[in-house]
Amino acid sequence: MSSDARPIGVFDSGMGGLTVLSAMEARLPAERFFYLGDTARLPYGTKSAATVEAYALAATRLLIAEGVKMVVVACNTASAVALERLTRELAPVPVIGVIEPGARAGVAATRNNHIAVIATEGTVKGGAYVRAIHALSGDIDVVQQPCQVFVALAEEGWTDSEVTRTAAKRYLGPLFRGASAPDTLVLGCTHFPVLAAAIRGVIGTGVAMVDSAATTAAAVADALAAQGMGVAESGAHGAPTRGAPTSGARTRFLATDSPERFARVGEIFLGRPIAASDVELVDLRSLP
Amino acid sequence: MSSDARPIGVFDSGMGGLTVLSAMEARLPAERFFYLGDTARLPYGTKSAATVEAYALAATRLLIAEGVKMVVVACNTASAVALERLTRELAPVPVIGVIEPGARAGVAATRNNHIAVIATEGTVKGGAYVRAIHALSGDIDVVQQPCQVFVALAEEGWTDSEVTRTAAKRYLGPLFRGASAPDTLVLGCTHFPVLAAAIRGVIGTGVAMVDSAATTAAAVADALAAQGMGVAESGAHGAPTRGAPTSGARTRFLATDSPERFARVGEIFLGRPIAASDVELVDLRSLP
Repeated sequence: MSSDARPIGVFDSGMGGLTVLSAMEARLPAERFFYLGDTARLPYGTKSAATVEAYALAATRLLIAEGVKMVVVACNTASAVALERLTRELAPVPVIGVIEPGARAGVAATRNNHIAVIATEGTVKGGAYVRAIHALSGDIDVVQQPCQVFVALAEEGWTDSEVTRTAAKRYLGPLFRGASAPDTLVLGCTHFPVLAAAIRGVIGTGVAMVDSAATTAAAVADALAAQGMGVAESGAHGAPTRGAPTSGARTRFLATDSPERFARVGEIFLGRPIAASDVELVDLRSLP
Repeated sequence: MSSDARPIGVFDSGMGGLTVLSAMEARLPAERFFYLGDTARLPYGTKSAATVEAYALAATRLLIAEGVKMVVVACNTASAVALERLTRELAPVPVIGVIEPGARAGVAATRNNHIAVIATEGTVKGGAYVRAIHALSGDIDVVQQPCQVFVALAEEGWTDSEVTRTAAKRYLGPLFRGASAPDTLVLGCTHFPVLAAAIRGVIGTGVAMVDSAATTAAAVADALAAQGMGVAESGAHGAPTRGAPTSGARTRFLATDSPERFARVGEIFLGRPIAASDVELVDLRSLP
């Protein structure tokens, strides 16, 4: 049995992708992770496709240089606009985005063939979820709603405050009114899972909520198994391994700006404390 | 009488500085302006001082290359952390920030020597308003409150919505309770003037609200007069002028990303429409 001990690279514009990391840590207990948040240039969600592509490429190249075996683009905006180019340029290292797993889970969940997708402005504008859903099933109605303020509310830690409930009502109330309303809501931004309770309060219990963190973790597990790249649980006890085992923490954190803020805000999304001293600062401007 | 027809450079991380531009356009009807929004890297308010300083320096150098006679840093975060370095590196072109004018107006307004400053995380952390106020009057109590969500609310155009009123209550309610509460509120972020109605609803009519857009416009007018750098109203009719007069619009807009979003969101802050075709896209990565 093969055992590939190299870490899995996880890339996001900032801290939202930590919801995806958290789901992967739970799902893949034998794997190590190398998380890079491009906090010097966040958010990606309000920026143009060309800019996001350039940023994502520079950032993921750093992960490749660190010897990761796979790159998970834990950012909906970057997945939406840059996945094709990243896949091409980072080959042969496999690249997995969050859009396709989320679209697949949404299609599996809907009964009335009506799906709502909430995301950043950039993801909505790019239309990647609409394309991904229609590639799986052409007769599904997809309605998109940009929810840019949700990003700030999540980063402020106002995960279930009156402010967030009021914003959720404003964004989602009109969408989920009437008999022909969507029966499925795809959270198309990695920030949004932490606002799930406030969102649930508006859409009610009858709507399926698809969280791309959990669906992406499942897709990564499948890809590792299919390509024989997983860590065998017994790998440390004799099976051949690739990559140097690390001592210490199972997950390394890198940020392109302010480790202190990464640690403070990141805790909201990761669901466990991060010490600022465990976050390494990298300067992407120093890269080629 | 001298008449310097060169434009005034105005720099911000994005669109918030358009509140300052608007105040300057009203106050200085004979001047031309060259506004640069570093939208590819916004927001500055959540980033480290070193990163903001590097970004601001690259961006303002572009304004210098375009031949502006003065640089107005219409961004509180950049003014808070980078003004000293910009002043040094851009000399002999004078540089004016928004902090000192806002602090001066706050000190002039307070009667009970208690001022509240609301701003981005970066501005609060840097403490520049506290230092600027204490440099003017050492016995004033200054309380700071970061209001990061206000930035997203302003950019969403939710200027007086229930969401914004609820957020204002959460941020400001506790600050303005009790007999010893501040009697003056400095809006220490150029986004915040568009939220003035919602903020006023929480703090009540007895508190003076200082808007750094208006105070900075006054400071620029003073500096132009003091240095003999203003455009004489009669300049076009024979007085000696420096700089090439332009045909067409009085204000040029440059953005480092997405002219479409700059125009759409910018309208909220400028208070008049901007055509996306009037916004030039520049790539700061191409600069030295």
